[in-house]
Amino acid sequence: MAKKVPHRLYLTEDQMPKQWYNLRADMKEKPAPLLNPGTQKPLELEELYPIFCEELAKQELDNTTRYIDIPEEIQDFYKMYRPSPLIRAYNLEKALDTPAKIYYKFEGNNTSGSHKLNSAVAQAYYAKKQGLKGLTTETGAGQWGTALAEACSFYNLPLTVYMVKVSYEQKPFRKTVMETFDAKVIASPSNTTNVGRAILENNPNTGGSLGCAISEAVEKATTTEGYRYVLGSVLNQVVLHQSIIGLESKIAMEMLDEYPDIVIGCAGGGSNLGGLIAPFMQDRLTQKASPRIIAVEPASCPSLTRGKYAYDFCDTGRVTPLAKMYTLGCDFMPSANHAGGLRYHGMSPILSKLYHDGHMEATSVEQTKVFEAAVLFAKQETILPAPESAHAIRTAIDEAILCRETGEAKTILFGLTGTGYFDMTAYNSYLNNSMKDYIPSDEDLQKGFDRLPKVNA
Amino acid sequence: MAKKVPHRLYLTEDQMPKQWYNLRADMKEKPAPLLNPGTQKPLELEELYPIFCEELAKQELDNTTRYIDIPEEIQDFYKMYRPSPLIRAYNLEKALDTPAKIYYKFEGNNTSGSHKLNSAVAQAYYAKKQGLKGLTTETGAGQWGTALAEACSFYNLPLTVYMVKVSYEQKPFRKTVMETFDAKVIASPSNTTNVGRAILENNPNTGGSLGCAISEAVEKATTTEGYRYVLGSVLNQVVLHQSIIGLESKIAMEMLDEYPDIVIGCAGGGSNLGGLIAPFMQDRLTQKASPRIIAVEPASCPSLTRGKYAYDFCDTGRVTPLAKMYTLGCDFMPSANHAGGLRYHGMSPILSKLYHDGHMEATSVEQTKVFEAAVLFAKQETILPAPESAHAIRTAIDEAILCRETGEAKTILFGLTGTGYFDMTAYNSYLNNSMKDYIPSDEDLQKGFDRLPKVNA
Repeated sequence: MAKKVPHRLYLTEDQMPKQWYNLRADMKEKPAPLLNPGTQKPLELEELYPIFCEELAKQELDNTTRYIDIPEEIQDFYKMYRPSPLIRAYNLEKALDTPAKIYYKFEGNNTSGSHKLNSAVAQAYYAKKQGLKGLTTETGAGQWGTALAEACSFYNLPLTVYMVKVSYEQKPFRKTVMETFDAKVIASPSNTTNVGRAILENNPNTGGSLGCAISEAVEKATTTEGYRYVLGSVLNQVVLHQSIIGLESKIAMEMLDEYPDIVIGCAGGGSNLGGLIAPFMQDRLTQKASPRIIAVEPASCPSLTRGKYAYDFCDTGRVTPLAKMYTLGCDFMPSANHAGGLRYHGMSPILSKLYHDGHMEATSVEQTKVFEAAVLFAKQETILPAPESAHAIRTAIDEAILCRETGEAKTILFGLTGTGYFDMTAYNSYLNNSMKDYIPSDEDLQKGFDRLPKVNA
Repeated sequence: MAKKVPHRLYLTEDQMPKQWYNLRADMKEKPAPLLNPGTQKPLELEELYPIFCEELAKQELDNTTRYIDIPEEIQDFYKMYRPSPLIRAYNLEKALDTPAKIYYKFEGNNTSGSHKLNSAVAQAYYAKKQGLKGLTTETGAGQWGTALAEACSFYNLPLTVYMVKVSYEQKPFRKTVMETFDAKVIASPSNTTNVGRAILENNPNTGGSLGCAISEAVEKATTTEGYRYVLGSVLNQVVLHQSIIGLESKIAMEMLDEYPDIVIGCAGGGSNLGGLIAPFMQDRLTQKASPRIIAVEPASCPSLTRGKYAYDFCDTGRVTPLAKMYTLGCDFMPSANHAGGLRYHGMSPILSKLYHDGHMEATSVEQTKVFEAAVLFAKQETILPAPESAHAIRTAIDEAILCRETGEAKTILFGLTGTGYFDMTAYNSYLNNSMKDYIPSDEDLQKGFDRLPKVNA
């Protein structure tokens, strides 16, 4: 018999995790290593130092340390906006007339509007500790850029953000938020880098992509004295930092004598999904439990459900190391009418490996269905979700409806990664019925696959 | 010796207040009654029924019931987004190098982005319970309109919002948020009402004002079958509902063995200030304690600090009852370059009476100083504040700096009413140094005073 469940459960500061959990330590089959694109050999630690600060480079390659201490300074920063609440969606359950119990972990109650701050503060802290002069990064929907701007401002660390042009234009206010936190924001592709200039020459009207913005940020970091590059998703270090989401969720559920039958997260590069599922995936890998784990991605950018598991560049300009992951090809650009984030061509190598090995499921959803779920959720739960998060809501609702049909009282946990206050252009197009769905054709996708780098590994 | 203070303290559901506190019950001298503008006699309950739903009309006139039960349905709604955290501003204290202890009650973690939801849900609930067909209201910065849209959507109650035109134009996304929650949003003044048409005829280019939008909303409600009007500030019922802010704050501070020496709130119509200070003002009125209580208003709309304590209309169109309050005259319109909310010409009659009787202080601040405080706060505490809230931040910072100079370790509590995500146009003008201050001249104010209604009461 489960305990009386409050609408919102907050851990106390004492209950907050003091270590991150490194999922790789419990994977018998490790994710494939990053390769040097020139030699096609696994990257050595020292080869990462020109790109990442040293502590983060170590975390990136650490496949074995199960728990990593969260430095006290980062714990203190976390306490400014965490713990995030675990919320029981009583009203959504009622509206769906489902026997399912729906929980969500809400990461949107901070100014970045998302979970991104969890890794941003870690990355800014380690960079500052190493005495770096500044950081560069890219941002798509703007949540990562905002989060990193907040963290860098707190540590007095200069930051340059390459913002995907289509977002830069759709979301001028996001730019102002980052500028409030002293960040320099540049629309990408731009003429401030070689790779940006080359992309603009080929395609002057491009709306940009995360892959392209990454190329520019990496080039800028590696050509500026004392600068390093940081990334808000995909990387192993990011999945590590984001494990705080899942760890808090699990503690809270244990306090309620609950355990999820299904864990659902939206998936772009994998930062939220990897963090949310971490301790539940640990239970699967160590055979303590076997929750279903579902990644939800947009039908317009279906890397897990329709991509290839292959080595690819992490960026469009082909300047990064090669990562083995589910990918649509590093120059894949989702249709401009795709509204939410989750625009990345690839997927976290950790999640890609777990998916490849059958430890999780993946599904893709069309954006009008996503916004339908977003509006239903907003009205019932009073939180206006980010379009990204609404992918997970869509699938949670679909699973809860299935429960209504089968009569099963399953426990569903999903990640509500953020709020949609800066996505009102997209909401408006949904409300006006001008939003269109887009599913790339097999031929479109094949073009991307044909251009995958040849790797003999 | 105070207990160890966490960064954020959340009450549990069990600790949440189950009653609102009615400040009027402890006022020996009651606020002056509302007058019928025709007869100049105190309004009878029945005279309010065409405007407000019955339960709210009763609350409006109830000067004696000290505690009023919060209906369970409203408690359940509160649990979707409350309790709000009491936060210790450790990093702000450090940045200011002050011995003061700064606490703030953060009401911005819900989709309305402010404390407004606390009264919106109560008003929508009572209206639904009475079987009304719909509601009308006005909104300035947009927080109240958003809050009420959320609440009405939850209870399936149609809503028409008259939105001050200057905000409507500056904040198109606010409109979309309200529309997401099914509200009909109309820029005010509009040609949908007689009063709107009259105002437009006199001043076709007006940016509107809260007072004018109120006139339109009242006219619409009283001329539409089964509709009533609701208001997000000024009214006694609103101050009652908002007492949840202060009640939660006081419980949380008691858990920390703390008590504020100074309580600071921004003041537009008084909804947040009246709620935040309620139990602390009770302590003053009942001589249990004597915290300083400070209202902070914009220098461009200085009703407490430069207004007259007199009977006036609550709206520009002179259709509402007369309220005795500090007022700049019901046709006062703050300069268009004033960015934040707090644009109302009057002030809650309860707060006006308390101020008049010397139970609280008031100060006014210029908006560039307000945004300076907002940016400092955002960088230290990672929350981007609403411009309205930043008025309280400004004064809290000034008091903390005084403490640094005197060496006193005072305990300061202020209300952080909301977030500024929809105010980036104003932030942008501050960051670009294009923001100007505006202080009305004595002559300007005299014009408003000259047009005050003649009341013989």
